[in-house]
Amino acid sequence: MLDTVLAFIDDNLSASLDRLFALLSIESISTDPGHRDSCRAAAEWLTADLATIGFAASPRPTPGHPIVVGHHAGPAPHVLFYGHYDVQPVDPIELWRTPPFEPRVATLSDGRKVIAARGASDDKGQLMTFVEAARAWHAVTGHLPVRVTMLFEGEEESGSANLRPFLAANADELKADLALVCDTGMWSRERPAITTSLRGLLAEEVVVTAADRDLHSGLFGGAAHNPIHVLAAILAALHDGDGRVTLPGFYDGVDEVPQEIKRQWAALDFDAAAFLGDVGLSVAAGEKGRSVLEMLWARPTCEVNGIVGGYIERGFKTVIPARASAKVSFRLVGDQDPVKVRESFRAFVRSRLPADCSAEFASFAGGRALRLPVEGAWLGRAGAALAAEWGVEPALIGGGGSIPVVADLKEVLGLETLMIGFGLDDDRIHSPNEKYELSSFHHGIRSWARILAALAEQ
Amino acid sequence: MLDTVLAFIDDNLSASLDRLFALLSIESISTDPGHRDSCRAAAEWLTADLATIGFAASPRPTPGHPIVVGHHAGPAPHVLFYGHYDVQPVDPIELWRTPPFEPRVATLSDGRKVIAARGASDDKGQLMTFVEAARAWHAVTGHLPVRVTMLFEGEEESGSANLRPFLAANADELKADLALVCDTGMWSRERPAITTSLRGLLAEEVVVTAADRDLHSGLFGGAAHNPIHVLAAILAALHDGDGRVTLPGFYDGVDEVPQEIKRQWAALDFDAAAFLGDVGLSVAAGEKGRSVLEMLWARPTCEVNGIVGGYIERGFKTVIPARASAKVSFRLVGDQDPVKVRESFRAFVRSRLPADCSAEFASFAGGRALRLPVEGAWLGRAGAALAAEWGVEPALIGGGGSIPVVADLKEVLGLETLMIGFGLDDDRIHSPNEKYELSSFHHGIRSWARILAALAEQ
Repeated sequence: MLDTVLAFIDDNLSASLDRLFALLSIESISTDPGHRDSCRAAAEWLTADLATIGFAASPRPTPGHPIVVGHHAGPAPHVLFYGHYDVQPVDPIELWRTPPFEPRVATLSDGRKVIAARGASDDKGQLMTFVEAARAWHAVTGHLPVRVTMLFEGEEESGSANLRPFLAANADELKADLALVCDTGMWSRERPAITTSLRGLLAEEVVVTAADRDLHSGLFGGAAHNPIHVLAAILAALHDGDGRVTLPGFYDGVDEVPQEIKRQWAALDFDAAAFLGDVGLSVAAGEKGRSVLEMLWARPTCEVNGIVGGYIERGFKTVIPARASAKVSFRLVGDQDPVKVRESFRAFVRSRLPADCSAEFASFAGGRALRLPVEGAWLGRAGAALAAEWGVEPALIGGGGSIPVVADLKEVLGLETLMIGFGLDDDRIHSPNEKYELSSFHHGIRSWARILAALAEQ
Repeated sequence: MLDTVLAFIDDNLSASLDRLFALLSIESISTDPGHRDSCRAAAEWLTADLATIGFAASPRPTPGHPIVVGHHAGPAPHVLFYGHYDVQPVDPIELWRTPPFEPRVATLSDGRKVIAARGASDDKGQLMTFVEAARAWHAVTGHLPVRVTMLFEGEEESGSANLRPFLAANADELKADLALVCDTGMWSRERPAITTSLRGLLAEEVVVTAADRDLHSGLFGGAAHNPIHVLAAILAALHDGDGRVTLPGFYDGVDEVPQEIKRQWAALDFDAAAFLGDVGLSVAAGEKGRSVLEMLWARPTCEVNGIVGGYIERGFKTVIPARASAKVSFRLVGDQDPVKVRESFRAFVRSRLPADCSAEFASFAGGRALRLPVEGAWLGRAGAALAAEWGVEPALIGGGGSIPVVADLKEVLGLETLMIGFGLDDDRIHSPNEKYELSSFHHGIRSWARILAALAEQ
């Protein structure tokens, strides 16, 4: 029966692509209030699509964008699949080779075929691999190998403020035996992966103000504080000469990676030079004495993601601005507590403000790091299914990004999560010219078809 | 005869205001290519207005915005009056209480009447004090007390790139006995001033790039250089803990203020607390051990006038940007050489770039500081005229800003300049809600009428 399902997937790949393109055409940028209607449209599109494959689905209102929930009956176990339909902003728009919301299949110079669009990889393409696998089982057999609940969020790229309350309010409906999340990557184009650890995230905005108005640098320059100087000095002080973050207490809860894990990672033969070279870099930045893989999977970071102050248009304006602001995020590992890091950051900023300057803060996200058991029945079955599809054992890897829903699913619903995805490091997620490999989409669908069958074999 | 001219000015103040409002309504923002037509419109308005008071005037094309030149016959000496019709950008527009290009007379809470508009003080209002004085003489006597050439530039706020070549190409036409520049301020609302020194200016833009694209801070954070961090560290290093600029050689050519000048300045009873308090500040920033007046008039500065990098819209985006940029300006004094300061700045930046990062530079302005003789016949006559109008001797002051044309007039045409203006420190030039005191406009016109007469008394 599985072979028939896999053949159905192969035969209907073009229709699967058409559906993905329809979803990719919707400009569901969750962080931008101007795209609220597009986010609702994406939720409604998914709801309608789930209905065509036997799901009882609906978009559920939240204070932000809707959350789509769909149920399909089936044998045990009951799996909860999570994905998100919102995408990152597209700026700088002028760097896109093709419009971000006009998806197309492009052929790269080396012959690879890729799906080019914002959200192609993060996360609409990944999400649809699972939907299409369910569609194939439904089409061929009239049912699914296991009971499935779909959960599609619309605010993953903007802090997921409403997800946890939604999980708590609908815990009885959403409880399952296992969660599946498809928002992670493969080890390489040929080798799949299961992600067993993720960094946490804290995102803060700080606004520094000095004078009560913009000043002329000729009239006041030298005698009046410049908030850009104050902010630059504070941001520069966040790292020491060895690349370590200087916030007091920042490394509390950060453990060294166990030797056994380090050995596993070393066996992966990670090519740091190729990883950096792919984006035009040659030398690893960051903490001295740490490997790139360790820095990405097991070390915390502090990054300034945005800064603005004064005159930024073309030309020149000799202004001393009244304010300057920065968006600062921290990737967290181990037992780092986002609340303590936030307080340490705010105290750090306040302690460095000269007279007449003040700081205001806003918080956008906070979530702890996550480490999942690297053994277990579900992981073994899913790993075997992936090995059957790709012809190679999946790598067990860490993830540098944050998927706060995994912690939420554990803490609110008591669910373990299997993180399996088919993204690649060069997918340019969050950047111009985001893409998803056509082979990731195709074999991703086939992988999920196999995993659904594997999970059912009790 | 002077009394008749002064009475004419008083009787026709309303018509003078109407003309100023017409000029203020033109959105001549020179730094913004989108306002090119408005700049030309301002030049044409001035040309037409000069023609109504007997000037042979025309807008002269340049590679940038036109320069208006007008000639009016008269007895010796021949004076060249300089002003500029372009204005600063208006952002942040939301802070303006009334639209910047809809001029009006407003009454402040203390009863003062002010002209509110972008350019009201810098420099359209000041420029028109001289034009209206000439108009009064022309209307009452049919001629002017001295021969006058008008020179109105349209690129003062954007670097004056075309002024010096224009002066050189038209030196024979523009040569005069004395230059008058009305782009400076009064000592206080009651006491006029003649400015005898000005700081120079160097304006640079620096763009730091690292990776060849924006990166996801989860995938790359910790291992990839962040240009915002690099730029912030460089900008923070530009000042030491005592507020001194750290560029090698920066203070070459900076002399201590002579004791005699210091005594003059001390006699002015400058109220630093009120000066800072007016813009919401309480403590002087800048170099330790220097008075505010010294810092503004006689010490060089380095100010970051704008910075931008990464995601700066609402919400949050966990991006490591490919580039970050800053606009940095230096106020120069004494014999500081803008070319040497520029090279020192660029070398300073380049020496601090980590591997994989690069910097590009653009230059917007460069001009030496200026110190004029504080004695002389012209200065004495103009000072006496000002004293007659205001009832108090004018203060001889320094200027914190830069008026590069004064150096150009000296170097290209061999002209000494008298800098007399009626702006006030709280005019909010370059800021939202720029204003010009109605009394500055009225008594400024009367002052110029007196000065024209005084200069003719040989």
